[in-house]
Amino acid sequence: MKIVPPYLMFLGDAPDQLGAKTADGVAKWRPDWCLGQLRLEGCQADIGLKDMTLEEAKAAGVKTLILGVTNQGGFFNDSWMETLHGALDLGMDIASGLHMRLGDVPGLGEKAAKLGLQLYDARHPTQDFAVGKAVPRTGKRVLTVGTDVSVGKMFTSLCIEKEMKARGMKADFCATGQTGIFIVGEGVSVDAVVADFISGAAETLSPDNDPDHWDVIEGQGSLMHASYAGVTLGLLHGSQPDAIVLCHEPVRPHMRGTPHIPMPGLQATIDANIAAGRLFNPDIRCIGVSVNTSGLSAVDAAKFLTDTEAELELPCVDAYKDGAARLVDALS
Amino acid sequence: MKIVPPYLMFLGDAPDQLGAKTADGVAKWRPDWCLGQLRLEGCQADIGLKDMTLEEAKAAGVKTLILGVTNQGGFFNDSWMETLHGALDLGMDIASGLHMRLGDVPGLGEKAAKLGLQLYDARHPTQDFAVGKAVPRTGKRVLTVGTDVSVGKMFTSLCIEKEMKARGMKADFCATGQTGIFIVGEGVSVDAVVADFISGAAETLSPDNDPDHWDVIEGQGSLMHASYAGVTLGLLHGSQPDAIVLCHEPVRPHMRGTPHIPMPGLQATIDANIAAGRLFNPDIRCIGVSVNTSGLSAVDAAKFLTDTEAELELPCVDAYKDGAARLVDALS
Repeated sequence: MKIVPPYLMFLGDAPDQLGAKTADGVAKWRPDWCLGQLRLEGCQADIGLKDMTLEEAKAAGVKTLILGVTNQGGFFNDSWMETLHGALDLGMDIASGLHMRLGDVPGLGEKAAKLGLQLYDARHPTQDFAVGKAVPRTGKRVLTVGTDVSVGKMFTSLCIEKEMKARGMKADFCATGQTGIFIVGEGVSVDAVVADFISGAAETLSPDNDPDHWDVIEGQGSLMHASYAGVTLGLLHGSQPDAIVLCHEPVRPHMRGTPHIPMPGLQATIDANIAAGRLFNPDIRCIGVSVNTSGLSAVDAAKFLTDTEAELELPCVDAYKDGAARLVDALS
Repeated sequence: MKIVPPYLMFLGDAPDQLGAKTADGVAKWRPDWCLGQLRLEGCQADIGLKDMTLEEAKAAGVKTLILGVTNQGGFFNDSWMETLHGALDLGMDIASGLHMRLGDVPGLGEKAAKLGLQLYDARHPTQDFAVGKAVPRTGKRVLTVGTDVSVGKMFTSLCIEKEMKARGMKADFCATGQTGIFIVGEGVSVDAVVADFISGAAETLSPDNDPDHWDVIEGQGSLMHASYAGVTLGLLHGSQPDAIVLCHEPVRPHMRGTPHIPMPGLQATIDANIAAGRLFNPDIRCIGVSVNTSGLSAVDAAKFLTDTEAELELPCVDAYKDGAARLVDALS
């Protein structure tokens, strides 16, 4: 199953810009695929695309309506029903990033089946996986890892893929979360897989490839996070990465979601990932650090990068601001 | 939900003794709960209980039929239907350790609902979990960890609980797999939880308790195993153990299920578990080693235990053969 572009981004009645974070990420990285946005009355989000009706989107060639809204609880609002049904009536697929499944919306599954259209729930794996076996695979893999959750692992991975493609290298971004899945049209939400199959799902995600091909795998969670480290470890083992890039956000008072737990050290996080990753790829190495410096002044950001680079003896960049050239150099 | 004893162990048409491994483990640890076994024609397994018909079991006071058969694929055989329906007709609950759900057997769910009886799928979590938060909890916790899968973590945990109870200590075995769940009547199959919630499920399993109470938590998988380490890490983090006991089987040529991967060192396995566990319980320590010596001669077993004890400087026992007294001593 693959989500077919181009997309119409449905923002519903998102109460603020944060509610459209998923749609915003997709529009940022795949501007060519995102032809417009559809906002309901009261919507307070704007991702800078042309406002379109369903009919205008259809005329413009849209194939899939993306439900790119994040809301508390992950439910479908009644106010969205007209748009969802209308999209199917016009022959568009629908893809959703919510926890609730599109097929559970009354009448939607039947209508899609009848019309031969696709309902794609990016948060729910669409296939069964075998358990991981750690058999060595051909091709090369780089995985982003983090000191914490939401520190820029997806953005850094996309920056690395972009730089590699700009250099004419063979590279693919491998999506492991809903926003990433919309950005490539496929992938696996590894945190939604049954626990026994995390590493197996990761193995499926970056299969054998050409010797000079890089899979750039989007990391999830953090080995140092009390909630999600199991997901992170399974992804690390199943990815068998040749290289990792540490992602970090320097202005956090504590780990996200657990206010009593301080942020871990950068070197300690690298060491934990290398120690675990080495089990199934003895050549694994950390090749650099990507820092989200958006919370720092330009002066403080430059100082943090310089200091961290000296301390860790690794290239240290803000990949989103400055590009991933130095990281890709270190991979060569 | 709790599975209500006493049990009738249904062995179906198990082709060999291994097919009744689950039932055998339950009968071994809860002989008072297991009143009899029911075997169909052709069954090649025998767990040493009295053979009973459903009617005899009912008359003996059985409350639950335990489907303690493991078969390839985890499906229900057609030949079992008469027994499953018959058990409900006689007013017994049914509990299963198969992957397929009892409610998916045609007619079984409706009949159970109509009769007010319980269908319990031990492999499927019966509740929703929150993500783990690693907030410190009262009471004490000991977790068994392994160099590999199936090295005796459940048996060792049960031996520790038994020894603690014999000493009058407050202790509970916390089940994390199907056999353990039948043994205590409740628990969580942590490997069947959605990946995001592994550590959260583990936190639910060993909640706040008296300061002198020990939760003895059954380990799952191994941090060193390519297939299951994510489950193991989430269980380790969520358990926040004060102590771990390393379990090991010394005669394996390689990790189970991955013939190209050698067994890890015992000290390396301890170090990996302590490093990860320390994140959310800085006082964690390894207090001993439990070795399944059933594959060794008496002389070789004694030598292995002595050598390992000297090497690791920790009590080293075969807890199932020799009891867990030295392990419990080390916990005091």
